[in-house]
Amino acid sequence: MAVQFHLIKTDPSSRARRGRLYTRHGSVETPVFMPVGTQASVKTMSPHELLDIGVEMILSNTYHLFLRPGHDLIREAGGLHRFMAWPKSVLTDSGGFQVFSLSPLRRISEEGVTFRSHLSGETFFLSPERATEVQNALGADVIMAFDECPPYPAERSYVEESLERTLRWARRCQAAHRRPEDQGLFGIVQGGMELDLRRHAVESLAEMDFPGYAVGGLSVGEPKEKMYDVLEYTTELLPVDKPRYLMGVGAPEDLIEGVRRGVDMFDCVLPTRIARNGTVWTRRGKLVVRNGAYARDYRPLDPECSCYTCRHFTRAYIRHLLKADEILGLRLTTYHNLYFLVHLMQDIRRAIEEDRFAEFRSAFYRTFEIRKSEDAEGGR
Amino acid sequence: MAVQFHLIKTDPSSRARRGRLYTRHGSVETPVFMPVGTQASVKTMSPHELLDIGVEMILSNTYHLFLRPGHDLIREAGGLHRFMAWPKSVLTDSGGFQVFSLSPLRRISEEGVTFRSHLSGETFFLSPERATEVQNALGADVIMAFDECPPYPAERSYVEESLERTLRWARRCQAAHRRPEDQGLFGIVQGGMELDLRRHAVESLAEMDFPGYAVGGLSVGEPKEKMYDVLEYTTELLPVDKPRYLMGVGAPEDLIEGVRRGVDMFDCVLPTRIARNGTVWTRRGKLVVRNGAYARDYRPLDPECSCYTCRHFTRAYIRHLLKADEILGLRLTTYHNLYFLVHLMQDIRRAIEEDRFAEFRSAFYRTFEIRKSEDAEGGR
Ligand SMILES: [Zn+2]
Ligand SMILES: [Zn+2]
Repeated sequence: MAVQFHLIKTDPSSRARRGRLYTRHGSVETPVFMPVGTQASVKTMSPHELLDIGVEMILSNTYHLFLRPGHDLIREAGGLHRFMAWPKSVLTDSGGFQVFSLSPLRRISEEGVTFRSHLSGETFFLSPERATEVQNALGADVIMAFDECPPYPAERSYVEESLERTLRWARRCQAAHRRPEDQGLFGIVQGGMELDLRRHAVESLAEMDFPGYAVGGLSVGEPKEKMYDVLEYTTELLPVDKPRYLMGVGAPEDLIEGVRRGVDMFDCVLPTRIARNGTVWTRRGKLVVRNGAYARDYRPLDPECSCYTCRHFTRAYIRHLLKADEILGLRLTTYHNLYFLVHLMQDIRRAIEEDRFAEFRSAFYRTFEIRKSEDAEGGR
Repeated sequence: MAVQFHLIKTDPSSRARRGRLYTRHGSVETPVFMPVGTQASVKTMSPHELLDIGVEMILSNTYHLFLRPGHDLIREAGGLHRFMAWPKSVLTDSGGFQVFSLSPLRRISEEGVTFRSHLSGETFFLSPERATEVQNALGADVIMAFDECPPYPAERSYVEESLERTLRWARRCQAAHRRPEDQGLFGIVQGGMELDLRRHAVESLAEMDFPGYAVGGLSVGEPKEKMYDVLEYTTELLPVDKPRYLMGVGAPEDLIEGVRRGVDMFDCVLPTRIARNGTVWTRRGKLVVRNGAYARDYRPLDPECSCYTCRHFTRAYIRHLLKADEILGLRLTTYHNLYFLVHLMQDIRRAIEEDRFAEFRSAFYRTFEIRKSEDAEGGR
């Protein structure tokens, strides 16, 4: 088996789980946050910085790599790990999400999706078979079934139709998968905000027996409470012995709430994207270091953080770099945000191990200020 | 004394010198190449990467720091070294060069230069006294006299008038310098392509007794042969026991030719700037890794290089990153180019120590292909 999941412990006071995922590139302690390397690079970071931070698994985007530089080139280079010099685990998504969110034109049929490249305008076709073939060429440790992620809000009838197709596509991906010994193919639970459709999706996918299950179609603009409710309902139905992956979610509070509801894996562009806009997370909440208020603030981004950025640089210097369009500024904020999330997950894991996850969660909310009424904010 | 120079050895077959510069932030082996950190950051690099590469001294630009974030802020931060977390030596230029090359409007008088910021359009004034005060606030180990660098070509009468003013300004900088125990103030030899003016400049500055002398006004567009001739003439006149700094020169062949003519210090934006355009230096000459020819080239940038970039990444991957606008691509090419120059200088120093500089130079030209008929290309 390409991927194996070992459930170490379940929190007595919630559905939080402590586990370990084994892939051909090492083991991954779960719950885990996976930084996103859209184009075979986690933006601004070197692979060795990711290792220093403690990252054990990253995500890369099939849609982007398919268009540029092409999966044939990456296969020829020895696969994605060698191409980008990343020795640990990799997950690729199926391209479905980007086809629907980035392509200026797409036509969906039972067979697959015809779409225009957002780069060149050229027309391409992706189907369950083709997306699986591309992911087989890329060679990630975990690959995803080709799915459609319906927008929010969407008509129930559309969500239903889309889900049935996504379920048929999941079966076709399984049949097309040529490297089951190297790569674990995960199914994706869709169904929008319709609980009965979510149940139907879980039951159908569980029957196909995937080595892991993703929850897709959340963090697409719905209110946070809705996201948490649908998630809670869905994870309760999922097989206990398989990893659960919540796609496109990465705000600190969402990681905690996701873990609480039994999620083992997360990915999101949020930490790297907001970093490049000059926003970082600290133990106290968000800090917009670009703001004039920090021009003469000679403290580190987060005085309680011991990352590379916080050990060496001040808010004043980082703000200067960002204002002056210096790349080092983007590197330093990105490094800190990834470190923050990776260490948050470490703290979460330890709390679960020590039977104090509920306590940890309360303590987190006491210091971490969240702007209320935010809609679910994610991104793949 | 803030800065001391120890001449270790002179090459028997040329005027190449092996020396050591002592500053309050350590010793610098010469001949040395100083990477440029225009806005208190060597573009794309962290200070720790520069240390890894073996950089012992960097240059930063007074003009840019004066405008943003301001020298008062940097003084308040504890000076430039602390602000940018750079523990080794720093040199700041005087701002003169940028006032003349970047400002959209400037008016020169005996007193100083009124100019418009290229950022905000606001009007500022820099004089010998003001430029020295700003540099005293920044706190670099070596600071430069405020000068005018005449363009190429220029009327002899203008060069003459400009030189006399620059010499008067040099004296005023010396008088205005408030931290002679911490910072070594270097004089700058101007005089355009007029040899007798160069002689006059050297004699006048030598009388003022600076701890080091820069050769300015070269690599401004003149033919390379002319640059080498004027440089050779000028260095021959300079005091033997003081360091000589050739401003704005950094092409590999120019470093070799500069050393051969007795230069100890160099700076240039060339390695970092061409790197960001996708061009790197190898033992064989320039390589434009952005080119399609390297799309499926799975060799390192320079198979003979052992830098971080060349130990881990292929031309194909770096080209992909550059085409995809990924910052890591800029980091990897910059790292390699700086490593290339820093190690070229190490090789040069060893060759001088071992009495085989002429041999080293011939061997360099046998493998390093230079496009002939290039004009002097530099940049500050
Ligand atoms: Zn930090
Ligand atoms: Zn290299």
